[in-house]
Amino acid sequence: MTNIILSGCCGRMGKTITRLASESPKYNIVCGVDHQFCVNDSAFKIVQHISDAPNDADCIIDFSNPSSLNGLLEFSTKNSIPLVLATTGYTAEQVEQIKEASQNATIFFSFNMSLGISLLANLAKQATKVLGLDYDIEIIERHHNQKLDAPSGTAVLLADEIMSVRNNEIDSHLVFDRHSRRAKRDTSEIGMSSIRGGTIVGEHTILFAGNNENIELTHSANSREVFANGALRAGEFIAGKPTGIYAMSDLVSGTC
Amino acid sequence: MTNIILSGCCGRMGKTITRLASESPKYNIVCGVDHQFCVNDSAFKIVQHISDAPNDADCIIDFSNPSSLNGLLEFSTKNSIPLVLATTGYTAEQVEQIKEASQNATIFFSFNMSLGISLLANLAKQATKVLGLDYDIEIIERHHNQKLDAPSGTAVLLADEIMSVRNNEIDSHLVFDRHSRRAKRDTSEIGMSSIRGGTIVGEHTILFAGNNENIELTHSANSREVFANGALRAGEFIAGKPTGIYAMSDLVSGTC
Amino acid sequence: MTNIILSGCCGRMGKTITRLASESPKYNIVCGVDHQFCVNDSAFKIVQHISDAPNDADCIIDFSNPSSLNGLLEFSTKNSIPLVLATTGYTAEQVEQIKEASQNATIFFSFNMSLGISLLANLAKQATKVLGLDYDIEIIERHHNQKLDAPSGTAVLLADEIMSVRNNEIDSHLVFDRHSRRAKRDTSEIGMSSIRGGTIVGEHTILFAGNNENIELTHSANSREVFANGALRAGEFIAGKPTGIYAMSDLVSGTC
Amino acid sequence: MTNIILSGCCGRMGKTITRLASESPKYNIVCGVDHQFCVNDSAFKIVQHISDAPNDADCIIDFSNPSSLNGLLEFSTKNSIPLVLATTGYTAEQVEQIKEASQNATIFFSFNMSLGISLLANLAKQATKVLGLDYDIEIIERHHNQKLDAPSGTAVLLADEIMSVRNNEIDSHLVFDRHSRRAKRDTSEIGMSSIRGGTIVGEHTILFAGNNENIELTHSANSREVFANGALRAGEFIAGKPTGIYAMSDLVSGTC
Repeated sequence: MTNIILSGCCGRMGKTITRLASESPKYNIVCGVDHQFCVNDSAFKIVQHISDAPNDADCIIDFSNPSSLNGLLEFSTKNSIPLVLATTGYTAEQVEQIKEASQNATIFFSFNMSLGISLLANLAKQATKVLGLDYDIEIIERHHNQKLDAPSGTAVLLADEIMSVRNNEIDSHLVFDRHSRRAKRDTSEIGMSSIRGGTIVGEHTILFAGNNENIELTHSANSREVFANGALRAGEFIAGKPTGIYAMSDLVSGTC
Repeated sequence: MTNIILSGCCGRMGKTITRLASESPKYNIVCGVDHQFCVNDSAFKIVQHISDAPNDADCIIDFSNPSSLNGLLEFSTKNSIPLVLATTGYTAEQVEQIKEASQNATIFFSFNMSLGISLLANLAKQATKVLGLDYDIEIIERHHNQKLDAPSGTAVLLADEIMSVRNNEIDSHLVFDRHSRRAKRDTSEIGMSSIRGGTIVGEHTILFAGNNENIELTHSANSREVFANGALRAGEFIAGKPTGIYAMSDLVSGTC
Repeated sequence: MTNIILSGCCGRMGKTITRLASESPKYNIVCGVDHQFCVNDSAFKIVQHISDAPNDADCIIDFSNPSSLNGLLEFSTKNSIPLVLATTGYTAEQVEQIKEASQNATIFFSFNMSLGISLLANLAKQATKVLGLDYDIEIIERHHNQKLDAPSGTAVLLADEIMSVRNNEIDSHLVFDRHSRRAKRDTSEIGMSSIRGGTIVGEHTILFAGNNENIELTHSANSREVFANGALRAGEFIAGKPTGIYAMSDLVSGTC
Repeated sequence: MTNIILSGCCGRMGKTITRLASESPKYNIVCGVDHQFCVNDSAFKIVQHISDAPNDADCIIDFSNPSSLNGLLEFSTKNSIPLVLATTGYTAEQVEQIKEASQNATIFFSFNMSLGISLLANLAKQATKVLGLDYDIEIIERHHNQKLDAPSGTAVLLADEIMSVRNNEIDSHLVFDRHSRRAKRDTSEIGMSSIRGGTIVGEHTILFAGNNENIELTHSANSREVFANGALRAGEFIAGKPTGIYAMSDLVSGTC
């Protein structure tokens, strides 16, 4: 069982983590941290500052906000308690600060906290290697109609991972719009299509289209709960690990 | 059984029609027409000009080329034999000529000879009516990497059909590329995504994305044989029909 | 705007209806009915018995339980207020009672309250008619791993609708398991596959597989909210309608 | 460039290999072997017995029939030319014979000659490892209506590969039919659904369904050409390799 300090326990993701942990025998929240007050069905104590948390937990999971970073890094380093940073929105300076801190602390920091998406990226890289230039690659993502950006950050991340492999063979580039031209598809293209509609939470597909043969890898999420799940898996993963910086990709390849 | 004069019998589509007709008890080719010579496993006679074909067939199916149009219209009108024009590439003038000729002849003329695509268009129109503005509409098409144009002609046709219904409620427009902007999706948008890769013959999907609910209608073709199938069905359909111009949409709605 | 009496307003579906109605300008809940007490963010009054509800609403939507039926039918008949019965679990006797009551009351009663599923059934029937025996039909449904029955009630309903059309041409029957035999597929078969896993809310696909051509119609639900949506649409639909019994299929075909 | 002796060059797969090799700069057929005569557009010589083939090719690809096995093994061993056995239908004794021969010869022997399917199996194993018991596994395959067996041999192979990983955690078993029971899905189940219809060449999907998250891996083949492609890739792979027995899985993992 992994004993967890939950930072940001009164926020939406904090409450989701609390519920998921209470449903599983693998996770135990020993203390919550939050500046605001909240009703807490579980038995754990809530403190206002991370410095008041117990110093013998197995890991800290943080779903608060970037302003908590200093306190978290200090507490994690001082007490040698691994830290999962599941908060988004860090500045470039903070990302640097996280990397430096990892010399003396065990930190899990990932741009995507979904285990499934990391697995998808890993499988896509492997497929890119094996299939080579005989197969054309297209990325298709679907999200709800309130999403401002396109393509999704996850789709960009998947494209980066694929190109890190593909570019060993050919210099690839993304193509977003084919209607404005009249030309055969070139092998160096990686198509990127963004579908928007309704309340779709998130779906990402990578298509490898070959000679009379297609391979499709798809991940679909039905709720933001997948990020809470991923954070719990990350906490379990880094508990007891040596200092350094870890990411979801380590969790995915480490299991293999 | 439908007795057919097959114009363009030595071309690729002509040979496919010959094979499909020989495999079905519903179709009988009584005469082929082609300027070139070809080996013909079936028993039918091949003549060089349509004027030499028998005047008592149930229909003519033409898969030759636009230059045959005059002779076909004349023969069809004179002998009152319904004519299926499955050839593509007519000029705007020829399209006008076809419409005029249909005052005295029975002509089947459709921009898409696939029964499945016409059905898809019909179902999509019905879904558009029922679901109304609570559902966002996206069209996604996939074709092989040699295709020059995007979106496909069929996707454009599907969009036109959907908009003919949707525009009663809201003025819709196609959106081809979302990566160049930063905005929520508007109800008036109809997304259009073109996927290209490998040897994909053709796939068209219409997505209706609503509040926690999606409906997807997909047609996929595995071979150009679907157009030969459609032409045979068209020939069966117009045999014995009064003069006028008919299209695949009549065949689809007429069956209901 | 449709003025609604909401029976069962404190249950899970009642609360969902309350939220959806508050988010839309089309719906207004004038009174809730529930035996139990609940916190109600909206302004409407809650009464314990339907007999205490106002007699001038546009419709009643019931998401309570079968034991409320007598009171609802009486109130609806007496005050000529159309009644949407979205409760499940009626006995055969109660179903008979509902049918009889519809001689003097306007009742919406449907085995499936999802607009999308009803549309799917309608499209599937149309495709079955047009495509005929040249296409094989397979139904595939996916649900979560806690579901006891297979196939789903909705899949059975879809199969019934399809067979009501198909049986005009060939006597069809469902095939659930192909691994126990060694035989080609017969045209009279309708395959039925039940996929179970994770937390999948519900997905139904009807595949029409022809000669080098497939058509697939898919509905997927992401939340039980789709039934609340359907009930609201039903309430809007029957408001002002003459006495009789109505179902979701009327709503779907009536719009066309 | 890989110089190939093509055994069974006049059969359907032999002709496909000939065409594919002529279209690619990577492959060169130096000699064909076949008992029957056939027209050969390429320049290579055809001999009746493998013993008359040149002894300096880079590999032999065999798409003939099981009766050729003895001659092939003898020639391959004697001349140290790697041998790709792409023929199916060997007896258990012949499979043993192949294994023994591989002590002194370089042999590629795989139950599935599709690179894509082998990749799919590999990715599915990796996903099974990473996702663990939190995700339910279902296999769905689609084939044409003339196929006698269900599930497909490939689906059985995929299930075996998945279970070889999964069984480290839980004793798994296949479930073919859920309609005959009334029970929640158990984690130890691996569902297997066989869809049959039309002319579908072959599609295999592995679904990992978790908590609000699904991962789907799909391979679809549009023509039997994929096996010819795989055989050519196999020939390129084993050219120059030491004696031993190789399979498509080596090609897939070897590239990584």
